Amino acid sequence: MATITIFGTGNMGTSIGSVFAAGGHSVHHIGSDASSPKVEGEIVVLAVPHAAVADIVDSVGAQLDGKIVVDIANPVDFETFDGLAVASDGSAAADLAAALPSARVVKAFNTNFAATLASGKVGDAITTVLIAGDDTDAKSELAQAITAGETVTVIDAGSLKRARELEAIGFLQITLAAAEKISWSSGFAVVR
Amino acid sequence: MATITIFGTGNMGTSIGSVFAAGGHSVHHIGSDASSPKVEGEIVVLAVPHAAVADIVDSVGAQLDGKIVVDIANPVDFETFDGLAVASDGSAAADLAAALPSARVVKAFNTNFAATLASGKVGDAITTVLIAGDDTDAKSELAQAITAGETVTVIDAGSLKRARELEAIGFLQITLAAAEKISWSSGFAVVR
Repeated sequence: MATITIFGTGNMGTSIGSVFAAGGHSVHHIGSDASSPKVEGEIVVLAVPHAAVADIVDSVGAQLDGKIVVDIANPVDFETFDGLAVASDGSAAADLAAALPSARVVKAFNTNFAATLASGKVGDAITTVLIAGDDTDAKSELAQAITAGETVTVIDAGSLKRARELEAIGFLQITLAAAEKISWSSGFAVVR
Repeated sequence: MATITIFGTGNMGTSIGSVFAAGGHSVHHIGSDASSPKVEGEIVVLAVPHAAVADIVDSVGAQLDGKIVVDIANPVDFETFDGLAVASDGSAAADLAAALPSARVVKAFNTNFAATLASGKVGDAITTVLIAGDDTDAKSELAQAITAGETVTVIDAGSLKRARELEAIGFLQITLAAAEKISWSSGFAVVR
């Protein structure tokens, strides 16, 4: 069993924690009020608003060396709500990997609404966590940890470059829910 | 009832034609061997490989003025299979709209595999055609024509700028099917 450290205690952090807990993993949350947090997990999930990621990198970046660091960000440009606040040929995950060159960055969970992680369902389909990254072993370890509880399934979407497409999906899904064209408890399902 | 002209007689052209035909519309196909084709429909679907779109623009562009022109392209860069052959902040649909300034360009069908249009199902979910465009009336007319047969449903994903995200979804879906992580008869479903 793995030890999982989750930065964030909101809807996403809680729902992601429940997925890992269902698999018998030890889950520790670190809230935004933590001073000098100690990162114990070999898997570290950054379940915080995208704008807060830089602070975590500044404060505990050195502790993340060698660890699997999970980026769940949907870096929506909230001024325009018409695009993402990252380079058009890049992604938040690519930015994080550049900021943490010794961490094993994996994109995951950004295409899942919190409610679908908690329920394990998108409509009648089992919730699929799409992951992307350049470290194959890190992806494999993360996928095992996510699926151990059998509440959700995982598809490896490819290299970290695919985070660009995952963030496009996450963004579109948010805009559709904000416009009430889908609900916050449904969205994109993946059918094999 | 509308008259629909579909460029292309392949899997996508045929399946899209069946969606419109189910609604009682008059559907005409134009094959790649047609010389001096006459475009009769008020809705024109370019169900051809992305590389063939420019030829259609050259040969019949003037006939498309004022018409609803449906771009279904997934402009995959087949040399790398690692991205799209369009500007990273743009889309094939935006390029088409620039090439046909007097047409009413709508992005549609590019997130649907042909089999899911023919069956009306992605797994247990009804097939959703995501559309995007800047001409609200054009989108509304197209959505009515697509849904008249009640075989599939439509969600308006927003302005033509959202074609960027729709093309990201289409591309990712193709890479997943090519890697046999999903089948060519399933893929992304939209659950409301």
